[in-house]
Amino acid sequence: MFQPTISGSSRIRRTPYSKRVEEAGVKSYTVYNHMLLATVFQTLEDDYHHLKKAVQVWDVSVERQIEINGPDATKLLQMTTPRDLSNMQDDQCYYIPMVDKNGYMINDPVAVKLENERYWVSIADSDVIFYFKGLAEGLELNVNIFEPDVNILSIQGPKSKILVEKIFGKGAADIKFFRHRKVTFKDKDMIIARSGWSHQICYEIYVEGFSYGQSMWDELFKLGENLDVRAGCPNLIERIESGLLSYGNDINSNHNPYEAGLGKFLSNGISKGCLAYKKLTSISNPTKMIKPIEIIGDPIQPITYNSKVTNIAGDVVGQISSAAWSPDFKINVAIGMIDSEYWKQDENLFVEILENDKREIIIKDKFWS
Amino acid sequence: MFQPTISGSSRIRRTPYSKRVEEAGVKSYTVYNHMLLATVFQTLEDDYHHLKKAVQVWDVSVERQIEINGPDATKLLQMTTPRDLSNMQDDQCYYIPMVDKNGYMINDPVAVKLENERYWVSIADSDVIFYFKGLAEGLELNVNIFEPDVNILSIQGPKSKILVEKIFGKGAADIKFFRHRKVTFKDKDMIIARSGWSHQICYEIYVEGFSYGQSMWDELFKLGENLDVRAGCPNLIERIESGLLSYGNDINSNHNPYEAGLGKFLSNGISKGCLAYKKLTSISNPTKMIKPIEIIGDPIQPITYNSKVTNIAGDVVGQISSAAWSPDFKINVAIGMIDSEYWKQDENLFVEILENDKREIIIKDKFWS
Repeated sequence: MFQPTISGSSRIRRTPYSKRVEEAGVKSYTVYNHMLLATVFQTLEDDYHHLKKAVQVWDVSVERQIEINGPDATKLLQMTTPRDLSNMQDDQCYYIPMVDKNGYMINDPVAVKLENERYWVSIADSDVIFYFKGLAEGLELNVNIFEPDVNILSIQGPKSKILVEKIFGKGAADIKFFRHRKVTFKDKDMIIARSGWSHQICYEIYVEGFSYGQSMWDELFKLGENLDVRAGCPNLIERIESGLLSYGNDINSNHNPYEAGLGKFLSNGISKGCLAYKKLTSISNPTKMIKPIEIIGDPIQPITYNSKVTNIAGDVVGQISSAAWSPDFKINVAIGMIDSEYWKQDENLFVEILENDKREIIIKDKFWS
Repeated sequence: MFQPTISGSSRIRRTPYSKRVEEAGVKSYTVYNHMLLATVFQTLEDDYHHLKKAVQVWDVSVERQIEINGPDATKLLQMTTPRDLSNMQDDQCYYIPMVDKNGYMINDPVAVKLENERYWVSIADSDVIFYFKGLAEGLELNVNIFEPDVNILSIQGPKSKILVEKIFGKGAADIKFFRHRKVTFKDKDMIIARSGWSHQICYEIYVEGFSYGQSMWDELFKLGENLDVRAGCPNLIERIESGLLSYGNDINSNHNPYEAGLGKFLSNGISKGCLAYKKLTSISNPTKMIKPIEIIGDPIQPITYNSKVTNIAGDVVGQISSAAWSPDFKINVAIGMIDSEYWKQDENLFVEILENDKREIIIKDKFWS
C-alpha cells in the first residue's frame, strides 16, 4: 500500500500536545486548518474498540476558534448562518451550518456563546475567518475578529465523566449537551463543553494558553491511569456509524444545508438576519441529500475518496464519501450524497469500491448509533 | 527520525497528476490549499541538483485559482492589495501582497489578468476566496467569484524552454517574465506564463480541465525523454537560496508587507483603492523584517519549524523559519525575521537549531541566487 510520509513545515502548525501525541505512537496524520491531526494510533479498529469501552484524550487543537466580539458580533455571526441565534444563551453551543449569500455551505462550526456579544466559532476545515473579516471590513461593523490561543483537548468515551471529575472536581462533568461551564486548572479559568467529534460521552476542554497544554495532557494521563486512558483521535468508523459529517469530505461548498442533511437545524425558520435568507427560503425540496448507506458484502477497506454511485443503467446518481467496516454492527457503513429520485430505491444501486469490486448498496433511514 | 504517514482523505484533494506523481516515486507530501503537494522525490539534494541542470515537471495544482470577473472585478481585487493595478495589462501577472483592512498579510498570490475585468488569482496557502466573497457580498459588488477547474503544471530548469517548445511549438517559450500567452493542447486553448516557484527558468501551464491533466503530463514526459525530464516539486534548498518566501512559513497574518520584505512592490505608492491604504501609509519604518541569513558551521539538517534568534544576553530578537545546507554555495542558507535594531548586527546573534547545537548567524544583504 502506498504510504508517503508527511513533511515537517512550520506552515503546518504543531499543537501544544504534538510531542505527547508522537510519544503515544501516532501512526498517521492528516492536516486540518493548517495543523496536524492524528488519524490512527494502534489500528483504526483497535482505536475504535478502545474508544467505545474506556476513555481517550484527543488533541483536537485543529478545531481552531474564531473569536468575534463587539457590539455587532451577533449581527455578523447571524449574517453567516440561517440558524436563528436570537435565543442563544451565554452557556450555550450551537452547531451552525455556515453559508455564503448563495446559501452554499462554507463551514459547519460550533458557535460557543461566551457572554453577550462575544463568541468563539469552533471551525471545521476552512479559513472562514476571512469571510467574517470580509463582511465586517466591507460593512464597517463594530467587531473584533481574531484567533485566540485556544487548543482543545477532548475527553472521549464511557469513562470520560470520571476523568473530567478527577481533574476538575466533583460535579464538573454535570453539563447538559451542547452547554459549557467554567473550570479551573492551575489558577487559570477555562471552559469545558459537553460536545465533541464522536457519539460517545464526550467533553471538550477549551485549553486557553499554549503553555498550559502539555501539563493538562500529563495531568489527564496521570489521573486516568486506572481508567486505561489512551491518546486517541476522531475515528473514521465511529464517525460514520454515528453520522457525524465531515466538512470537506461529505459536504462542501457545492452543497446547501438541506442537501447536507442539516434541514433540521432550520426547522424553526430561517433567520432574516442571514444573508442567504432569500436564497434558502426559495429552496423547497433538495434534489440530493446526505444519506446513511450500507454497502453489502464482505468487509471493505476504509473508503476515503469519493466513489460514484450508479443505477442499473450505469448512470451516476450520487457518491459515497466515507465508508468503513463496522466491527460492532458487522456491516459496511457509509455516508453518501444521493439524488432524490433514488431515495426510495425502486431499483438496485451500486458503488465501485475498487476496480472489479462493484457492490450493491442500501440507503438507510438513519445512522447506526 | 519520526516519520508518520499521511492519511487518505477526500477532504485533501488529489490532483489530475497524483497517480503519475506516485508512480514517479514521491517520498513525502505536504498539504497546501486542501490538496496534496509533493516535497521530495529522490532526496532533497538530488532533486535540487537535477532541478538546476535539467528539466522537471511539477504538479503545483495546489496553486488554486480564484476567478474574479464582472464590472467590479478590478475594484474588488484592488481593495485587497496595496499594489497599484491600474496599469496592469491583459497578458500580465502581478505578484501582490494581499492584506486585510489592518494591513496584515492574508496571502501573497500572483494575480493573472486574463482580459478586462477578469482575473485569476493564483493563491498561496489560505482560503482567501472567503475574503473576496465577504467583501463582495457585504458591499453587493457586481462580480462572480469561484474556483475554476485549473491545475497548474510547472516546467522547471535550464532545459524548460526546450520542453515548452517541443510541446507547444517553436516560439511558444518566448514570453517575458511575469507575462502569459495562449497555447493549444488537443484543441483546447490554455495559457502559459513565464513564472514559477523557483529561481530557475520556469513556466507555468494553467491546465484548464481536469481531464486534460494526465495526458498533458504524459506528453511532457514523452517529449522530454532525451532531456532527462523528471517529476519534481518546489525544492526547499533552492527556494531559500533564491529568497522565495512561503506564506505560512516565513510570513503570515501577523506581518505587514514591509515586514514581509515586500516594500519594493509598493515603492510606486499605495493604491487608494486598497482598504488598508490609510493603515499602510502610516507605517514608516518596519520594526522587523524578513532577511537572508547564513548559519555558520557544519551542514545542518533542514529547518522547517520556527527557531528563535537570540542576542548575547539571550533576548529573542527574531526567528528563522526556513533553513538548509546549500550544496552549491557550501553554506547553510536561511530565511528569518529579525528585529530592526539588529540589522546592522553590532553584536553576535545565535540560533539554537537543535538542543545543544547553538550556531552563530550572519544577516546578509541579499539572497544567494
